[in-house]
Amino acid sequence: MITSVNPATGEERSLEIDETSPHDVAAICARAAAATSDLAARPLAWRAQMLRAMAGELEADGEAIVTSADFESALGRARLEGELRRTAFQLRFFADVVEDTSFLGASIDHAYDSPMGPLPDLRRLRVPLGAVAVFGSSNFPLAFSVPGGDTASALAAGCAVVVKAHPAHPATSALCAAALQRGAALVGAPEATIDIVYGFAAGVALVEDPHIAAVGFTGSLAAGRALWQRANERAVPIPFYGELGSANPLVVTRAAAGARAGEIGAGAAASMTLGVGQFCTKPGLLFVPTGPDGDALVDALVTALEETPTYTMLTSGIAAHFRDGTRGIAAHEASRALVAPPLAEGTSVRAQLFEVDATSYARPEAAALREECFGPLAVVVRYDGDDLYVALAAGTASLTMSVFVGEDDLDAARLVDYGATRAGRVIVNGFPTGVGVSWSMHHGGPWPATTAPQATSVGAAGIERWLRGLTFQSVPEALLPAPLSEANPWGVARRVDGALVVRP
Amino acid sequence: MITSVNPATGEERSLEIDETSPHDVAAICARAAAATSDLAARPLAWRAQMLRAMAGELEADGEAIVTSADFESALGRARLEGELRRTAFQLRFFADVVEDTSFLGASIDHAYDSPMGPLPDLRRLRVPLGAVAVFGSSNFPLAFSVPGGDTASALAAGCAVVVKAHPAHPATSALCAAALQRGAALVGAPEATIDIVYGFAAGVALVEDPHIAAVGFTGSLAAGRALWQRANERAVPIPFYGELGSANPLVVTRAAAGARAGEIGAGAAASMTLGVGQFCTKPGLLFVPTGPDGDALVDALVTALEETPTYTMLTSGIAAHFRDGTRGIAAHEASRALVAPPLAEGTSVRAQLFEVDATSYARPEAAALREECFGPLAVVVRYDGDDLYVALAAGTASLTMSVFVGEDDLDAARLVDYGATRAGRVIVNGFPTGVGVSWSMHHGGPWPATTAPQATSVGAAGIERWLRGLTFQSVPEALLPAPLSEANPWGVARRVDGALVVRP
Repeated sequence: MITSVNPATGEERSLEIDETSPHDVAAICARAAAATSDLAARPLAWRAQMLRAMAGELEADGEAIVTSADFESALGRARLEGELRRTAFQLRFFADVVEDTSFLGASIDHAYDSPMGPLPDLRRLRVPLGAVAVFGSSNFPLAFSVPGGDTASALAAGCAVVVKAHPAHPATSALCAAALQRGAALVGAPEATIDIVYGFAAGVALVEDPHIAAVGFTGSLAAGRALWQRANERAVPIPFYGELGSANPLVVTRAAAGARAGEIGAGAAASMTLGVGQFCTKPGLLFVPTGPDGDALVDALVTALEETPTYTMLTSGIAAHFRDGTRGIAAHEASRALVAPPLAEGTSVRAQLFEVDATSYARPEAAALREECFGPLAVVVRYDGDDLYVALAAGTASLTMSVFVGEDDLDAARLVDYGATRAGRVIVNGFPTGVGVSWSMHHGGPWPATTAPQATSVGAAGIERWLRGLTFQSVPEALLPAPLSEANPWGVARRVDGALVVRP
Repeated sequence: MITSVNPATGEERSLEIDETSPHDVAAICARAAAATSDLAARPLAWRAQMLRAMAGELEADGEAIVTSADFESALGRARLEGELRRTAFQLRFFADVVEDTSFLGASIDHAYDSPMGPLPDLRRLRVPLGAVAVFGSSNFPLAFSVPGGDTASALAAGCAVVVKAHPAHPATSALCAAALQRGAALVGAPEATIDIVYGFAAGVALVEDPHIAAVGFTGSLAAGRALWQRANERAVPIPFYGELGSANPLVVTRAAAGARAGEIGAGAAASMTLGVGQFCTKPGLLFVPTGPDGDALVDALVTALEETPTYTMLTSGIAAHFRDGTRGIAAHEASRALVAPPLAEGTSVRAQLFEVDATSYARPEAAALREECFGPLAVVVRYDGDDLYVALAAGTASLTMSVFVGEDDLDAARLVDYGATRAGRVIVNGFPTGVGVSWSMHHGGPWPATTAPQATSVGAAGIERWLRGLTFQSVPEALLPAPLSEANPWGVARRVDGALVVRP
């Protein structure tokens, strides 16, 4: 029996759910693979309709889902209601992406005499990779979990999805899976279009199952790397898209500190404690210039953090990990505590802030100061000139890099260019928390931010991860898939003989 | 000193080239990474000009290159002249792809009030991954080697390239590298835009070098898998695009055999011996129906193969491997030799043909019959009904699947659909050898055909492998890269607020 735990009160509820046996995982995956063949053959308009039906069913159960998620996460109803809106929006957004059709990359080259000699009729399309396994995150029980971005984008791609429920919110996961399944049923989708499994062993079995063709994962570097290795060790290795978190540098130039020390300091405190610092985009490394303006910024940050309450983290395990991380940073000889209230107990924690000079920070032995500490903690790195770049280079790549600059700031261009080489998203005069679902969002980055720097787990381009290219050569009209036939019955955007035809 | 060997005569020539030391590999990679930063910042029109200059310099040295490649490969001048034309065409084709600009995936979402609340200005672009390592193949000393598809697509993406020269054609590799370097110099590209290293140890050092951001590889499953593992074991793992070869099933329906037994049999003989069977697209598994029409097809195949000469393979090592593979198939209790002349010696070999029934072929212990044997050899699998699909399923995924069908053939649709699930290219009534460079080509496939089923190593989409997504949030106009600025000075195709604008 699976247990649902309220991290705020410690209350436990036994659910009518068992851990999924390896035998059942195998059966679920086989059905998902069969469902993918069915889904892939249906019209795109139908697929969009399915995603919208799922969004509707999720909203229909919204009250129960938010109540359950609040019980299991202590994130608060307001945040979770917003997350539900975002999650339903995301499903509908991917319906739009499906109807846009350009994700198919459909391309037709009629036979012709090329400079290399005659070429046959060639038609290329992106097709679904197969059934997809999704590992939801602890920190977004909706938007990055059962009905989240990986699920929405994989379904949009035409892949059936098997989600591994996160142990921090099993009841919410079950409710969400049921809503999505009802949405699928409403439009006559195969039953196995979306399914769910529970338990650690089931998760491993899922990654290793021969019917699974790709994995989406949001979570810690350690867990993500372990599962990524499993995916690579299979007889048939499969793509593994892990979004593994990130320390997210935020750099304040001298000019910005001079102009807006108080505002930036208070804003940084709010951003690093949003959702109890349990965001993969939390700004964890704050690069602040030495001198009085930087001091004023740090003072504002300290003042704001000292006013923060005792927080409840998602699980006692996550809180214990946060305390371990905090102690490691506190114990480092180069770090100085700025805000260091007692660490509290159980799931309770208090916000923490440490400071280090850029030169010490950049030393090989200071690795612990540069790593992500999941929770309401940041390390302020005081720099003075080009030691900023030495310090930035000593850290790893990240999901985001934020840059606060002044007007006509001579330091701005170099920092934006630098960020572009080391992060998946570069932000000017803004905080990295908050990842909008849109055509132009990229939520990813070079290792260790993700296992696949090409890929994004938020935004329209998220669909690309679940597709592979396929060319049909000299295939008669009657045997071509609809998007590649001359008739183009679905009206998809295509490239024809090299020229894009957006709306046929 | 590196030695150049003529496989036809055994003649050896010492080259004025040494194996590249680990120290030199590190220096070359560091320069390549710096060159990538430079290249990425230059206008696309300049990048296209560079690719065209490289094509011109390659052609200017054409006579010397073809002579050298013929000495080192024994593939013959006619084939190599064609390959040179194809290779120069490919560089110019990628110049066209660069000028098309849609590979950038540029997308702008202006700030707006979304259903999730206000969203900031978001702009997404694909940017070069970094310096790329390319491992050329033995069997295409030009088109899949130093100046080949991986190099052309990576340069088109804005990545500097370091090629590991294939030991089967070091002199040709050096000539090609020099031509590409001259082309780069003509347009003022950084010196390290294209470079080359020699020797096994240099290849391993290349994959492990921290300045290398991705690897393109064309070669054997064993070598590719070993290097892929090295890429995964790095402190910072990197994308590895291995095109590992494939057994390439070719299926003849009963109707097709009835209508065109002689033509298909003779065509299959020509396709499987083209380039001495040293094509990754060689049709190695020929599924032919039982009964008289199938017999007639096999007879035509046997007759054509018996007329083939003694061939020279690329290297004595490849020939030895071919003999080992042949002996393994011949020794299998279920196989029957149809064409099995003496295996010859050194680099000399003769074409080989074996036959097996579909049921025996599908058994677990018959794995040796289902694997690629690189060289002029094929296995005929005789089927009778649905044992065809059992046999196909017993094999691995592949780069291509060819289907020969009759008019209004009731077996055609199922076969094309099946091929689409297991191959990167499905061909109707045509042979798989010959991979045209075009917008709609896909040369890839699920594992073990490649290490990355999403990716293609031929055709316009090949450029996508070397790019990663990057979002700029609230970045002022003056700090945006040209393709994302409102002014759009390069005139790139973009999506603006969700709508594609192909030609601004």
